[in-house]
Amino acid sequence: MDRIVECVPNFSEGRRAEVVDEIVRAMMRPGVKLLDREMDADHNRAVITLAGEPTAIEEAAFHGIATAARLIDLDTHRGEHPRIGATDVVPFVPIRGATMDDCVAIARRLGERVARELDIPVYLYEHATTRPERRNLADIRKGEYETLKREIETNPDRAPDFGPQKVGKAGATVIGARPFLIAFNVNLATSDVQIAKDIARVIREKGGGLKSLKANGFMLKARNLAQVSMNLTDFNVTGMLTAFNAVQVEAEKRGVQVLESELVGLVPLEALTQLAAQALKLPAMNASQVVEIKIFGE
Amino acid sequence: MDRIVECVPNFSEGRRAEVVDEIVRAMMRPGVKLLDREMDADHNRAVITLAGEPTAIEEAAFHGIATAARLIDLDTHRGEHPRIGATDVVPFVPIRGATMDDCVAIARRLGERVARELDIPVYLYEHATTRPERRNLADIRKGEYETLKREIETNPDRAPDFGPQKVGKAGATVIGARPFLIAFNVNLATSDVQIAKDIARVIREKGGGLKSLKANGFMLKARNLAQVSMNLTDFNVTGMLTAFNAVQVEAEKRGVQVLESELVGLVPLEALTQLAAQALKLPAMNASQVVEIKIFGE
Repeated sequence: MDRIVECVPNFSEGRRAEVVDEIVRAMMRPGVKLLDREMDADHNRAVITLAGEPTAIEEAAFHGIATAARLIDLDTHRGEHPRIGATDVVPFVPIRGATMDDCVAIARRLGERVARELDIPVYLYEHATTRPERRNLADIRKGEYETLKREIETNPDRAPDFGPQKVGKAGATVIGARPFLIAFNVNLATSDVQIAKDIARVIREKGGGLKSLKANGFMLKARNLAQVSMNLTDFNVTGMLTAFNAVQVEAEKRGVQVLESELVGLVPLEALTQLAAQALKLPAMNASQVVEIKIFGE
Repeated sequence: MDRIVECVPNFSEGRRAEVVDEIVRAMMRPGVKLLDREMDADHNRAVITLAGEPTAIEEAAFHGIATAARLIDLDTHRGEHPRIGATDVVPFVPIRGATMDDCVAIARRLGERVARELDIPVYLYEHATTRPERRNLADIRKGEYETLKREIETNPDRAPDFGPQKVGKAGATVIGARPFLIAFNVNLATSDVQIAKDIARVIREKGGGLKSLKANGFMLKARNLAQVSMNLTDFNVTGMLTAFNAVQVEAEKRGVQVLESELVGLVPLEALTQLAAQALKLPAMNASQVVEIKIFGE
Protein backbone atom coordinates (compact mmCIF):
# COMPACT_ATOMS: atom_id res chain seq x y z
CA MET A 1 0.00 0.00 0.00
CA ASP A 2 2.10 2.89 -1.25
CA ARG A 3 -0.72 5.47 -1.46
CA ILE A 4 -2.58 6.39 1.71
CA VAL A 5 -5.39 8.84 2.28
CA GLU A 6 -7.09 9.48 5.60
CA CYS A 7 -10.80 10.30 5.91
CA VAL A 8 -12.49 11.58 9.08
CA PRO A 9 -16.26 11.58 8.51
CA ASN A 10 -18.40 13.16 11.25
CA PHE A 11 -21.87 11.66 11.66
CA SER A 12 -24.77 13.20 13.61
CA GLU A 13 -25.27 10.23 15.91
CA GLY A 14 -23.60 9.96 19.31
CA ARG A 15 -26.16 8.02 21.33
CA ARG A 16 -27.33 4.93 19.41
CA ALA A 17 -24.22 2.71 19.23
CA GLU A 18 -25.98 0.26 16.90
CA VAL A 19 -26.47 3.02 14.32
CA VAL A 20 -22.78 3.97 14.44
CA ASP A 21 -21.90 0.26 14.21
CA GLU A 22 -23.93 -0.07 11.04
CA ILE A 23 -22.34 3.03 9.48
CA VAL A 24 -18.84 1.77 10.33
CA ARG A 25 -19.64 -1.69 8.97
CA ALA A 26 -20.78 -0.14 5.71
CA MET A 27 -17.42 1.61 5.38
CA MET A 28 -15.20 -1.38 6.14
CA ARG A 29 -13.81 -3.01 3.00
CA PRO A 30 -10.45 -4.30 1.69
CA GLY A 31 -7.86 -1.52 1.71
CA VAL A 32 -9.62 0.43 4.48
CA LYS A 33 -8.33 0.47 8.05
CA LEU A 34 -10.34 1.86 10.98
CA LEU A 35 -7.92 4.02 12.98
CA ASP A 36 -10.28 5.54 15.51
CA ARG A 37 -13.93 5.78 16.49
CA GLU A 38 -15.31 8.34 18.92
CA MET A 39 -18.92 8.86 20.05
CA ASP A 40 -20.15 11.76 22.19
CA ALA A 41 -23.66 11.65 23.63
CA ASP A 42 -23.85 15.36 24.51
CA HIS A 43 -22.65 16.39 21.06
CA ASN A 44 -24.79 13.56 19.64
CA ARG A 45 -22.04 13.01 17.12
CA ALA A 46 -19.58 10.30 16.04
CA VAL A 47 -16.14 10.94 14.54
CA ILE A 48 -14.68 8.02 12.59
CA THR A 49 -11.07 7.96 11.37
CA LEU A 50 -10.29 5.74 8.39
CA ALA A 51 -7.15 5.44 6.34
CA GLY A 52 -6.07 3.37 3.40
CA GLU A 53 -5.87 3.11 -0.35
CA PRO A 54 -7.48 6.22 -1.94
CA THR A 55 -10.07 4.45 -4.12
CA ALA A 56 -11.17 2.21 -1.24
CA ILE A 57 -11.43 5.19 1.11
CA GLU A 58 -13.53 7.15 -1.37
CA GLU A 59 -15.89 4.17 -1.77
CA ALA A 60 -16.02 3.70 2.03
CA ALA A 61 -17.02 7.33 2.56
CA PHE A 62 -19.83 7.00 0.03
CA HIS A 63 -21.30 3.96 1.80
CA GLY A 64 -20.96 5.68 5.18
CA ILE A 65 -22.89 8.69 3.86
CA ALA A 66 -25.56 6.47 2.27
CA THR A 67 -26.04 4.48 5.50
CA ALA A 68 -26.18 7.61 7.68
CA ALA A 69 -28.82 9.12 5.34
CA ARG A 70 -30.94 6.00 5.83
CA LEU A 71 -30.59 5.82 9.62
CA ILE A 72 -30.38 9.43 10.87
CA ASP A 73 -33.22 11.96 10.80
CA LEU A 74 -32.07 15.57 11.20
CA ASP A 75 -35.62 16.70 11.95
CA THR A 76 -35.48 14.89 15.30
CA HIS A 77 -31.70 15.13 15.94
CA ARG A 78 -30.63 17.32 18.87
CA GLY A 79 -27.08 17.83 20.15
CA GLU A 80 -24.65 20.49 21.33
CA HIS A 81 -22.36 20.29 18.32
CA PRO A 82 -23.31 22.36 15.24
CA ARG A 83 -24.34 20.21 12.23
CA ILE A 84 -26.19 20.48 8.93
CA GLY A 85 -26.37 16.83 7.91
CA ALA A 86 -26.68 13.18 8.92
CA THR A 87 -23.16 12.98 7.55
CA ASP A 88 -22.06 16.44 8.58
CA VAL A 89 -18.53 16.80 7.25
CA VAL A 90 -16.10 14.53 5.37
CA PRO A 91 -12.48 15.71 5.07
CA PHE A 92 -9.90 13.80 3.03
CA VAL A 93 -6.28 14.08 4.17
CA PRO A 94 -3.17 13.13 2.15
CA ILE A 95 -0.84 10.88 4.18
CA ARG A 96 1.61 9.19 1.82
CA GLY A 97 2.00 8.92 -1.96
CA ALA A 98 -1.09 11.11 -2.46
CA THR A 99 -1.19 14.88 -2.83
CA MET A 100 -3.63 17.53 -1.69
CA ASP A 101 -4.76 17.73 -5.33
CA ASP A 102 -5.55 14.01 -5.23
CA CYS A 103 -7.69 14.59 -2.15
CA VAL A 104 -9.43 17.56 -3.78
CA ALA A 105 -10.26 15.32 -6.76
CA ILE A 106 -11.64 12.62 -4.43
CA ALA A 107 -13.76 15.18 -2.53
CA ARG A 108 -15.27 16.62 -5.72
CA ARG A 109 -15.93 13.20 -7.31
CA LEU A 110 -17.53 11.93 -4.12
CA GLY A 111 -19.59 15.13 -3.76
CA GLU A 112 -20.97 14.73 -7.25
CA ARG A 113 -21.84 11.07 -6.61
CA VAL A 114 -23.51 11.75 -3.25
CA ALA A 115 -25.67 14.41 -4.90
CA ARG A 116 -26.54 12.23 -7.88
CA GLU A 117 -27.15 8.88 -6.18
CA LEU A 118 -28.45 10.03 -2.78
CA ASP A 119 -30.07 13.36 -3.70
CA ILE A 120 -28.21 15.14 -0.89
CA PRO A 121 -26.92 18.73 -1.36
CA VAL A 122 -23.13 18.85 -1.06
CA TYR A 123 -20.89 21.82 -0.19
CA LEU A 124 -17.15 21.71 -0.86
CA TYR A 125 -14.79 23.21 1.74
CA GLU A 126 -11.13 23.86 2.63
CA HIS A 127 -8.79 22.96 -0.24
CA ALA A 128 -11.68 21.54 -2.30
CA THR A 129 -13.77 24.69 -2.15
CA THR A 130 -14.94 26.49 -5.28
CA ARG A 131 -15.65 29.80 -3.53
CA PRO A 132 -13.41 31.58 -1.00
CA GLU A 133 -16.36 32.33 1.32
CA ARG A 134 -16.94 28.58 1.68
CA ARG A 135 -13.40 27.67 2.69
CA ASN A 136 -14.28 27.57 6.39
CA LEU A 137 -16.62 24.88 7.60
CA ALA A 138 -18.17 27.23 10.18
CA ASP A 139 -19.32 29.62 7.43
CA ILE A 140 -21.03 26.85 5.47
CA ARG A 141 -22.67 25.48 8.62
CA LYS A 142 -23.94 28.86 9.85
CA GLY A 143 -27.44 28.53 11.37
CA GLU A 144 -27.17 24.72 11.16
CA TYR A 145 -29.65 22.35 9.52
CA GLU A 146 -32.72 24.27 10.63
CA THR A 147 -31.66 27.55 9.01
CA LEU A 148 -30.31 25.85 5.87
CA LYS A 149 -33.63 24.04 5.42
CA ARG A 150 -35.44 27.41 5.34
CA GLU A 151 -32.91 29.26 3.19
CA ILE A 152 -31.55 26.77 0.65
CA GLU A 153 -34.50 26.99 -1.77
CA THR A 154 -34.60 30.77 -1.95
CA ASN A 155 -31.13 32.13 -1.08
CA PRO A 156 -28.72 31.75 -4.03
CA ASP A 157 -25.74 32.14 -1.65
CA ARG A 158 -26.69 28.80 -0.17
CA ALA A 159 -26.88 26.93 -3.49
CA PRO A 160 -24.88 23.72 -3.04
CA ASP A 161 -21.89 22.78 -5.21
CA PHE A 162 -23.70 19.57 -6.15
CA GLY A 163 -27.23 18.29 -5.77
CA PRO A 164 -30.70 19.64 -5.19
CA GLN A 165 -31.50 23.08 -3.83
CA LYS A 166 -33.52 21.52 -1.04
CA VAL A 167 -32.76 19.32 1.96
CA GLY A 168 -34.45 16.12 3.09
CA LYS A 169 -34.17 14.63 6.56
CA ALA A 170 -30.50 13.73 5.87
CA GLY A 171 -29.67 17.43 5.58
CA ALA A 172 -26.61 18.50 3.59
CA THR A 173 -23.03 17.25 3.65
CA VAL A 174 -19.77 19.22 3.59
CA ILE A 175 -16.93 17.42 1.78
CA GLY A 176 -13.38 18.62 1.32
CA ALA A 177 -9.65 18.16 1.58
CA ARG A 178 -7.27 19.48 4.21
CA PRO A 179 -3.79 18.77 5.59
CA PHE A 180 -3.27 16.44 8.52
CA LEU A 181 -4.04 18.16 11.81
CA ILE A 182 -1.55 17.60 14.63
CA ALA A 183 -2.77 18.21 18.19
CA PHE A 184 0.29 19.06 20.24
CA ASN A 185 0.44 20.48 23.76
CA VAL A 186 3.29 21.88 25.84
CA ASN A 187 3.07 21.83 29.64
CA LEU A 188 4.70 24.64 31.62
CA ALA A 189 6.25 24.44 35.07
CA THR A 190 3.81 27.01 36.44
CA SER A 191 0.31 27.03 37.83
CA ASP A 192 -0.29 30.49 36.35
CA VAL A 193 -2.67 29.86 33.45
CA GLN A 194 -2.30 33.47 32.33
CA ILE A 195 1.27 32.72 31.20
CA ALA A 196 0.03 29.89 28.96
CA LYS A 197 -2.70 32.15 27.58
CA ASP A 198 -0.22 34.96 26.90
CA ILE A 199 2.19 32.60 25.11
CA ALA A 200 -0.65 31.14 23.05
CA ARG A 201 -1.77 34.62 22.02
CA VAL A 202 1.71 35.60 20.85
CA ILE A 203 2.62 32.44 18.92
CA ARG A 204 -0.65 31.69 17.11
CA GLU A 205 -1.42 32.83 13.58
CA LYS A 206 -4.40 34.93 14.69
CA GLY A 207 -2.03 37.04 16.85
CA GLY A 208 0.46 37.51 14.04
CA GLY A 209 2.60 34.56 15.14
CA LEU A 210 3.28 31.29 13.34
CA LYS A 211 1.26 30.45 10.23
CA SER A 212 -1.16 27.50 10.43
CA LEU A 213 -0.90 27.41 14.22
CA LYS A 214 -3.87 27.62 16.55
CA ALA A 215 -3.13 27.89 20.27
CA ASN A 216 -4.83 28.42 23.59
CA GLY A 217 -3.81 28.41 27.23
CA PHE A 218 -5.47 25.98 29.64
CA MET A 219 -5.13 24.86 33.22
CA LEU A 220 -4.48 21.15 33.86
CA LYS A 221 -6.26 21.13 37.19
CA ALA A 222 -5.29 17.62 38.24
CA ARG A 223 -1.60 18.47 37.91
CA ASN A 224 -1.84 22.19 38.79
CA LEU A 225 0.00 23.04 35.56
CA ALA A 226 -0.61 25.54 32.79
CA GLN A 227 -0.67 24.16 29.26
CA VAL A 228 -0.25 25.70 25.83
CA SER A 229 -2.57 23.59 23.70
CA MET A 230 -1.91 23.78 19.94
CA ASN A 231 -3.38 22.61 16.65
CA LEU A 232 -0.92 22.52 13.76
CA THR A 233 -3.28 22.77 10.81
CA ASP A 234 -0.48 22.33 8.27
CA PHE A 235 2.75 20.91 9.67
CA ASN A 236 4.53 21.59 6.39
CA VAL A 237 4.05 25.29 7.20
CA THR A 238 4.69 25.15 10.95
CA GLY A 239 5.94 21.84 12.30
CA MET A 240 6.19 20.47 15.84
CA LEU A 241 9.77 21.60 16.45
CA THR A 242 9.07 25.19 15.35
CA ALA A 243 5.97 25.31 17.55
CA PHE A 244 7.82 23.78 20.51
CA ASN A 245 10.75 26.17 20.15
CA ALA A 246 8.38 29.15 19.98
CA VAL A 247 6.72 28.11 23.24
CA GLN A 248 10.13 27.58 24.83
CA VAL A 249 11.41 31.02 23.80
CA GLU A 250 8.27 32.74 25.09
CA ALA A 251 8.31 30.72 28.32
CA GLU A 252 11.94 31.67 28.95
CA LYS A 253 11.09 35.34 28.44
CA ARG A 254 8.56 34.94 31.23
CA GLY A 255 10.96 33.05 33.47
CA VAL A 256 9.07 29.76 33.16
CA GLN A 257 10.45 26.32 32.30
CA VAL A 258 8.96 23.99 29.70
CA LEU A 259 8.18 20.75 31.49
CA GLU A 260 7.27 18.40 28.63
CA SER A 261 5.08 18.14 25.58
CA GLU A 262 2.37 15.68 24.56
CA LEU A 263 0.95 14.49 21.30
CA VAL A 264 -2.80 13.89 21.19
CA GLY A 265 -3.70 11.18 18.69
CA LEU A 266 -1.61 10.39 15.65
CA VAL A 267 1.01 11.99 13.41
CA PRO A 268 1.95 10.99 9.89
CA LEU A 269 5.50 9.72 9.48
CA GLU A 270 6.28 12.78 7.38
CA ALA A 271 5.90 14.96 10.49
CA LEU A 272 8.72 12.95 12.09
CA THR A 273 11.04 12.94 9.08
CA GLN A 274 10.45 16.69 8.81
CA LEU A 275 11.36 17.07 12.48
CA ALA A 276 14.53 15.00 11.99
CA ALA A 277 15.45 17.07 8.95
CA GLN A 278 15.08 20.26 10.97
CA ALA A 279 16.73 19.11 14.22
CA LEU A 280 19.68 17.48 12.43
CA LYS A 281 20.06 19.85 9.45
CA LEU A 282 19.32 16.78 7.37
CA PRO A 283 18.08 18.09 4.04
CA ALA A 284 17.70 14.73 2.35
CA MET A 285 15.77 12.81 5.02
CA ASN A 286 12.71 11.09 3.62
CA ALA A 287 10.24 8.41 4.64
CA SER A 288 11.73 5.75 2.37
CA GLN A 289 14.81 5.72 4.63
CA VAL A 290 12.70 4.28 7.43
CA VAL A 291 13.01 0.49 7.69
CA GLU A 292 9.32 -0.05 8.40
CA ILE A 293 8.31 1.92 5.29
CA LYS A 294 10.76 -0.10 3.16
CA ILE A 295 9.03 -3.21 4.48
CA PHE A 296 5.37 -2.20 4.47
CA GLY A 297 5.04 0.69 2.14
CA GLU A 298 6.73 -0.25 -1.06
CA MET B 1 3.32 -7.84 10.55
CA ASP B 2 3.77 -6.61 14.12
CA ARG B 3 7.15 -8.29 14.76
CA ILE B 4 10.12 -7.38 12.59
CA VAL B 5 13.71 -8.60 12.68
CA GLU B 6 16.42 -7.53 10.29
CA CYS B 7 19.19 -9.87 9.12
CA VAL B 8 22.33 -8.77 7.26
CA PRO B 9 24.18 -11.89 6.08
CA ASN B 10 27.61 -11.35 4.51
CA PHE B 11 28.60 -13.89 1.84
CA SER B 12 32.09 -14.43 0.43
CA GLU B 13 31.11 -13.83 -3.19
CA GLY B 14 31.36 -10.44 -4.85
CA ARG B 15 32.15 -11.34 -8.46
CA ARG B 16 29.76 -14.03 -9.71
CA ALA B 17 26.36 -12.30 -9.78
CA GLU B 18 24.61 -15.59 -10.62
CA VAL B 19 25.87 -17.11 -7.36
CA VAL B 20 24.58 -14.17 -5.33
CA ASP B 21 21.29 -14.38 -7.27
CA GLU B 22 20.90 -18.01 -6.27
CA ILE B 23 21.66 -17.29 -2.62
CA VAL B 24 19.15 -14.42 -2.55
CA ARG B 25 16.52 -16.56 -4.28
CA ALA B 26 16.98 -19.25 -1.64
CA MET B 27 16.27 -16.68 1.08
CA MET B 28 13.16 -15.11 -0.46
CA ARG B 29 9.95 -16.50 1.05
CA PRO B 30 6.63 -15.15 2.41
CA GLY B 31 7.23 -12.73 5.28
CA VAL B 32 10.74 -11.83 4.06
CA LYS B 33 11.50 -8.54 2.34
CA LEU B 34 14.79 -7.80 0.54
CA LEU B 35 15.83 -4.31 1.68
CA ASP B 36 19.26 -4.06 0.09
CA ARG B 37 21.82 -6.04 -1.86
CA GLU B 38 25.45 -4.96 -2.30
CA MET B 39 28.26 -6.74 -4.15
CA ASP B 40 31.91 -5.69 -4.11
CA ALA B 41 34.35 -7.32 -6.51
CA ASP B 42 37.54 -6.18 -4.72
CA HIS B 43 36.25 -7.38 -1.39
CA ASN B 44 34.78 -10.40 -3.18
CA ARG B 45 31.85 -10.16 -0.82
CA ALA B 46 28.08 -9.61 -0.91
CA VAL B 47 26.06 -7.97 1.86
CA ILE B 48 22.33 -8.73 1.79
CA THR B 49 19.81 -6.92 3.99
CA LEU B 50 16.57 -8.74 4.76
CA ALA B 51 13.79 -7.86 7.15
CA GLY B 52 10.50 -9.39 8.13
CA GLU B 53 8.71 -11.76 10.42
CA PRO B 54 11.25 -13.39 12.82
CA THR B 55 10.49 -17.04 12.00
CA ALA B 56 10.61 -16.38 8.26
CA ILE B 57 13.88 -14.44 8.60
CA GLU B 58 15.48 -17.25 10.60
CA GLU B 59 14.43 -19.78 7.95
CA ALA B 60 15.68 -17.48 5.16
CA ALA B 61 19.10 -17.16 6.80
CA PHE B 62 19.41 -20.95 7.04
CA HIS B 63 18.70 -21.41 3.33
CA GLY B 64 21.13 -18.63 2.43
CA ILE B 65 23.86 -20.33 4.45
CA ALA B 66 23.08 -23.75 2.92
CA THR B 67 23.18 -22.35 -0.62
CA ALA B 68 26.41 -20.41 -0.03
CA ALA B 69 28.03 -23.59 1.38
CA ARG B 70 27.11 -25.41 -1.83
CA LEU B 71 28.31 -22.69 -4.23
CA ILE B 72 31.33 -21.02 -2.57
CA ASP B 73 34.72 -22.65 -2.01
CA LEU B 74 36.88 -20.85 0.54
CA ASP B 75 39.98 -22.75 -0.63
CA THR B 76 39.89 -20.79 -3.89
CA HIS B 77 38.25 -17.57 -2.60
CA ARG B 78 40.44 -14.44 -2.61
CA GLY B 79 39.35 -10.94 -1.63
CA GLU B 80 40.45 -7.88 0.32
CA HIS B 81 37.84 -8.23 3.05
CA PRO B 82 38.66 -10.55 5.96
CA ARG B 83 36.47 -13.69 6.07
CA ILE B 84 36.34 -17.16 7.58
CA GLY B 85 33.36 -18.64 5.78
CA ALA B 86 31.26 -18.90 2.62
CA THR B 87 28.62 -17.28 4.79
CA ASP B 88 30.96 -15.16 6.85
CA VAL B 89 28.76 -13.38 9.37
CA VAL B 90 25.00 -13.28 10.07
CA PRO B 91 23.77 -10.61 12.51
CA PHE B 92 20.12 -10.45 13.62
CA VAL B 93 18.79 -7.01 14.55
CA PRO B 94 15.57 -6.24 16.47
CA ILE B 95 13.44 -3.64 14.66
CA ARG B 96 9.90 -3.72 16.06
CA GLY B 97 8.00 -5.97 18.45
CA ALA B 98 11.09 -8.14 18.94
CA THR B 99 13.76 -7.74 21.61
CA MET B 100 17.49 -8.28 21.61
CA ASP B 101 16.82 -11.45 23.60
CA ASP B 102 14.57 -12.68 20.80
CA CYS B 103 17.41 -12.09 18.33
CA VAL B 104 19.90 -13.87 20.60
CA ALA B 105 17.53 -16.86 20.70
CA ILE B 106 17.24 -16.84 16.90
CA ALA B 107 21.03 -16.66 16.50
CA ARG B 108 21.64 -19.58 18.84
CA ARG B 109 18.88 -21.75 17.38
CA LEU B 110 20.10 -21.06 13.84
CA GLY B 111 23.71 -21.72 14.87
CA GLU B 112 22.78 -25.10 16.29
CA ARG B 113 20.85 -26.01 13.13
CA VAL B 114 23.60 -24.88 10.75
CA ALA B 115 26.08 -27.04 12.66
CA ARG B 116 23.78 -30.05 12.79
CA GLU B 117 22.35 -30.02 9.27
CA LEU B 118 25.25 -28.49 7.32
CA ASP B 119 28.22 -29.64 9.41
CA ILE B 120 29.62 -26.09 9.55
CA PRO B 121 31.34 -24.79 12.71
CA VAL B 122 29.47 -21.79 14.14
CA TYR B 123 30.75 -19.05 16.43
CA LEU B 124 28.34 -16.78 18.31
CA TYR B 125 29.20 -13.06 18.59
CA GLU B 126 28.00 -9.70 19.93
CA HIS B 127 24.91 -10.05 22.14
CA ALA B 128 24.64 -13.78 21.35
CA THR B 129 28.17 -14.62 22.45
CA THR B 130 28.86 -17.17 25.17
CA ARG B 131 32.38 -15.90 25.91
CA PRO B 132 33.45 -12.26 26.37
CA GLU B 133 36.54 -12.76 24.19
CA ARG B 134 34.26 -13.64 21.27
CA ARG B 135 32.05 -10.58 21.49
CA ASN B 136 33.95 -8.81 18.69
CA LEU B 137 33.76 -10.24 15.20
CA ALA B 138 37.37 -9.24 14.47
CA ASP B 139 38.65 -11.43 17.30
CA ILE B 140 36.78 -14.49 16.06
CA ARG B 141 37.93 -13.88 12.49
CA LYS B 142 41.62 -13.35 13.39
CA GLY B 143 43.87 -14.95 10.78
CA GLU B 144 40.88 -15.61 8.54
CA TYR B 145 39.86 -18.95 7.03
CA GLU B 146 43.40 -20.09 6.31
CA THR B 147 44.56 -19.77 9.94
CA LEU B 148 41.32 -21.15 11.38
CA LYS B 149 41.65 -24.20 9.14
CA ARG B 150 45.07 -24.94 10.65
CA GLU B 151 44.18 -24.16 14.25
CA ILE B 152 40.60 -25.33 14.82
CA GLU B 153 41.43 -29.01 15.30
CA THR B 154 44.17 -28.48 17.86
CA ASN B 155 43.61 -25.12 19.59
CA PRO B 156 40.83 -25.36 22.21
CA ASP B 157 40.41 -21.55 22.16
CA ARG B 158 39.07 -21.93 18.64
CA ALA B 159 36.49 -24.59 19.45
CA PRO B 160 33.21 -23.47 17.88
CA ASP B 161 30.01 -22.88 19.86
CA PHE B 162 28.28 -25.43 17.63
CA GLY B 163 29.45 -28.03 15.12
CA PRO B 164 32.58 -29.89 14.21
CA GLN B 165 36.09 -28.92 15.30
CA LYS B 166 37.17 -28.87 11.66
CA VAL B 167 36.34 -26.75 8.61
CA GLY B 168 35.37 -27.84 5.12
CA LYS B 169 35.50 -25.64 2.03
CA ALA B 170 32.54 -23.58 3.38
CA GLY B 171 34.68 -22.48 6.31
CA ALA B 172 33.01 -21.35 9.53
CA THR B 173 30.12 -18.94 10.13
CA VAL B 174 29.75 -16.25 12.79
CA ILE B 175 26.15 -15.72 13.92
CA GLY B 176 24.90 -13.19 16.44
CA ALA B 177 22.60 -10.38 17.50
CA ARG B 178 23.30 -6.67 17.66
CA PRO B 179 21.42 -3.35 17.73
CA PHE B 180 20.60 -1.50 14.51
CA LEU B 181 23.59 0.43 13.25
CA ILE B 182 22.96 3.99 12.07
CA ALA B 183 25.50 5.54 9.71
CA PHE B 184 25.26 9.28 10.20
CA ASN B 185 27.65 11.98 8.94
CA VAL B 186 27.94 15.69 9.69
CA ASN B 187 29.54 18.02 7.15
CA LEU B 188 31.49 21.04 8.39
CA ALA B 189 31.90 24.40 6.68
CA THR B 190 35.66 24.00 6.51
CA SER B 191 38.18 22.36 4.22
CA ASP B 192 40.44 21.60 7.21
CA VAL B 193 40.11 17.85 7.68
CA GLN B 194 42.08 18.06 10.92
CA ILE B 195 39.13 19.79 12.58
CA ALA B 196 36.86 16.87 11.65
CA LYS B 197 39.46 14.39 12.91
CA ASP B 198 39.85 16.31 16.18
CA ILE B 199 36.08 16.44 16.74
CA ALA B 200 35.75 12.74 15.96
CA ARG B 201 38.50 11.90 18.45
CA VAL B 202 36.81 13.87 21.24
CA ILE B 203 33.24 12.66 20.77
CA ARG B 204 33.76 8.95 20.11
CA GLU B 205 33.59 6.28 22.79
CA LYS B 206 37.22 5.25 22.26
CA GLY B 207 38.30 8.77 23.23
CA GLY B 208 36.14 8.83 26.35
CA GLY B 209 33.26 10.56 24.56
CA LEU B 210 29.78 9.26 23.83
CA LYS B 211 29.02 5.59 24.45
CA SER B 212 28.29 3.39 21.40
CA LEU B 213 29.60 6.06 19.05
CA LYS B 214 32.34 5.46 16.50
CA ALA B 215 33.61 8.50 14.61
CA ASN B 216 36.28 9.53 12.13
CA GLY B 217 37.20 12.66 10.23
CA PHE B 218 37.30 12.57 6.43
CA MET B 219 37.73 14.96 3.54
CA LEU B 220 34.93 15.16 0.96
CA LYS B 221 37.24 16.04 -1.90
CA ALA B 222 34.55 16.77 -4.48
CA ARG B 223 33.00 19.40 -2.23
CA ASN B 224 36.20 20.50 -0.45
CA LEU B 225 34.53 19.90 2.93
CA ALA B 226 35.56 18.11 6.08
CA GLN B 227 33.17 15.48 7.40
CA VAL B 228 32.68 13.83 10.77
CA SER B 229 31.55 10.33 9.81
CA MET B 230 29.81 8.38 12.58
CA ASN B 231 28.43 4.94 13.34
CA LEU B 232 25.86 4.83 16.11
CA THR B 233 26.15 1.20 17.19
CA ASP B 234 23.26 1.49 19.66
CA PHE B 235 21.01 4.50 19.13
CA ASN B 236 19.20 3.77 22.40
CA VAL B 237 22.49 4.66 24.12
CA THR B 238 23.56 7.56 21.90
CA GLY B 239 20.99 8.74 19.37
CA MET B 240 21.27 10.98 16.31
CA LEU B 241 20.37 14.20 18.10
CA THR B 242 22.93 13.65 20.87
CA ALA B 243 25.63 12.86 18.31
CA PHE B 244 24.68 15.85 16.15
CA ASN B 245 24.66 18.21 19.12
CA ALA B 246 28.08 16.94 20.25
CA VAL B 247 29.55 17.66 16.81
CA GLN B 248 27.91 21.09 16.82
CA VAL B 249 29.30 22.01 20.25
CA GLU B 250 32.82 20.89 19.30
CA ALA B 251 32.62 22.65 15.93
CA GLU B 252 31.56 25.89 17.62
CA LYS B 253 34.51 25.65 20.02
CA ARG B 254 36.73 25.54 16.95
CA GLY B 255 34.94 28.43 15.25
CA VAL B 256 33.45 26.21 12.53
CA GLN B 257 29.84 25.99 11.38
CA VAL B 258 27.92 22.75 10.90
CA LEU B 259 26.68 22.74 7.32
CA GLU B 260 24.32 19.76 7.22
CA SER B 261 24.10 16.11 8.12
CA GLU B 262 23.40 13.00 6.07
CA LEU B 263 21.99 9.60 6.80
CA VAL B 264 23.57 6.67 4.96
CA GLY B 265 21.08 3.87 4.43
CA LEU B 266 18.12 3.25 6.68
CA VAL B 267 16.95 3.99 10.21
CA PRO B 268 14.28 2.18 12.18
CA LEU B 269 11.21 4.25 13.04
CA GLU B 270 12.19 4.01 16.70
CA ALA B 271 15.24 6.19 15.99
CA LEU B 272 12.85 8.93 14.79
CA THR B 273 10.36 8.64 17.64
CA GLN B 274 13.32 8.75 20.03
CA LEU B 275 14.57 11.89 18.32
CA ALA B 276 11.11 13.48 18.53
CA ALA B 277 10.90 12.55 22.21
CA GLN B 278 14.25 14.20 22.85
CA ALA B 279 13.80 17.33 20.69
CA LEU B 280 10.27 18.00 21.96
CA LYS B 281 10.59 16.77 25.56
CA LEU B 282 7.91 14.29 24.57
CA PRO B 283 8.21 11.43 27.06
CA ALA B 284 5.28 9.42 25.78
CA MET B 285 6.01 9.40 22.03
CA ASN B 286 5.87 5.90 20.58
CA ALA B 287 5.68 4.28 17.18
CA SER B 288 2.00 3.36 17.49
CA GLN B 289 1.21 7.10 17.26
CA VAL B 290 2.44 7.11 13.68
CA VAL B 291 -0.40 6.81 11.16
CA GLU B 292 1.53 4.46 8.87
CA ILE B 293 2.25 2.06 11.74
CA LYS B 294 -1.42 2.09 12.76
CA ILE B 295 -2.21 1.09 9.19
CA PHE B 296 0.53 -1.41 8.40
CA GLY B 297 1.89 -2.62 11.67
CA GLU B 298 -1.03 -3.68 13.79
